[in-house]
Amino acid sequence: MSNYIDNLNWRYATKKFDSTKKISEDDLSKLLEATSLSASSYGLQPYKILVLKDDDIRAKLKPAAWGQSQITEASHLIVLANQTTFGDELVDDYLTNVSETRGIPVEGLKAYADLMKANLMPLTDEQKAAWTAKQAYIALGNLLSAAADLKIDTCPMEGFDSAQFNEILGLDDKNLNAVVLAAVGYRSEEDQTQHYKKVRKSTENLITII
Amino acid sequence: MSNYIDNLNWRYATKKFDSTKKISEDDLSKLLEATSLSASSYGLQPYKILVLKDDDIRAKLKPAAWGQSQITEASHLIVLANQTTFGDELVDDYLTNVSETRGIPVEGLKAYADLMKANLMPLTDEQKAAWTAKQAYIALGNLLSAAADLKIDTCPMEGFDSAQFNEILGLDDKNLNAVVLAAVGYRSEEDQTQHYKKVRKSTENLITII
Repeated sequence: MSNYIDNLNWRYATKKFDSTKKISEDDLSKLLEATSLSASSYGLQPYKILVLKDDDIRAKLKPAAWGQSQITEASHLIVLANQTTFGDELVDDYLTNVSETRGIPVEGLKAYADLMKANLMPLTDEQKAAWTAKQAYIALGNLLSAAADLKIDTCPMEGFDSAQFNEILGLDDKNLNAVVLAAVGYRSEEDQTQHYKKVRKSTENLITII
Repeated sequence: MSNYIDNLNWRYATKKFDSTKKISEDDLSKLLEATSLSASSYGLQPYKILVLKDDDIRAKLKPAAWGQSQITEASHLIVLANQTTFGDELVDDYLTNVSETRGIPVEGLKAYADLMKANLMPLTDEQKAAWTAKQAYIALGNLLSAAADLKIDTCPMEGFDSAQFNEILGLDDKNLNAVVLAAVGYRSEEDQTQHYKKVRKSTENLITII
């Protein structure tokens, strides 16, 4: 655990990446495996993870993120894209997966499927999107910690025009929305913000024990 | 990293906790320190973390969470409560903290403060609450991983009536909203779900490399 906390103290929202340093395929694979193990409500994972290596598409996205250098200079740009809507197939596909993974007949899962559907399908599209966005943020929280464990730097980013990202990435047709980004790679020695003391609310201001 | 992934594979949404096993003060302190190190947009941490030990209040909350046993049987119940609204003070308090932590005059931070306020204050209360909720979910994602690192079991829970939780916990008056729960403690040997194979989307279904 001391390592876990040390890693969180080591990480910071990296402002300037070293564009010459790339994450190895092995580390990228571990980072994505860890992220894919993130918890989600009912286990439904109602989002996609886009991993952008391509320079051209990232150059196109940069103006839609106020020109922030991390978009093009980080080793990879990860886009978490939540489902803007869904139907019964979200639950049905999950149950097929449960059935296959655990080797149990899908018929035995019908009551559980009906419960999930009864809770989720009456939501408006706006409510569905708010719920799927939150699930993507669980993955983001885990991704940032997993990256720190691998000594990979990250910058979580909300400052971008999601409509433009969706258009450039062709997400609209897939009922997906770029909800949050994580630039991942290695900090530049020139990034002075790495030396700034981390600022967090005091325990008294953040935590109440009852 | 192999440990990090092993820990995520070890964890599961615990259905039945062993109510006789309590998290030590030392481990609880580490878990909360790790959670308080979670990233948030601009570093503003627009939420509170309530840690419920008290049996009476948890007994009162249980019916508002469809009677789920984790509410009362887990060692502790953590309630993440996002700010339902905020004004300039959210930014100003943060900048006072930055100034004190880093020993720099608050006047030098005015341009940054103005930028944050220009982005955040025009939001409607509904948009503010959606944004603060997402920040709380980053903390949840990190909390679940940190707990796994400590071999503390968790059950993230969205299945509760937030209005009733807010009333019982007196959150309304503080512009706070119980947005998500994490029951934390130790799994019961009787909990058969610990033996179920973890179900996750295949890499092909979840991740796209571009």
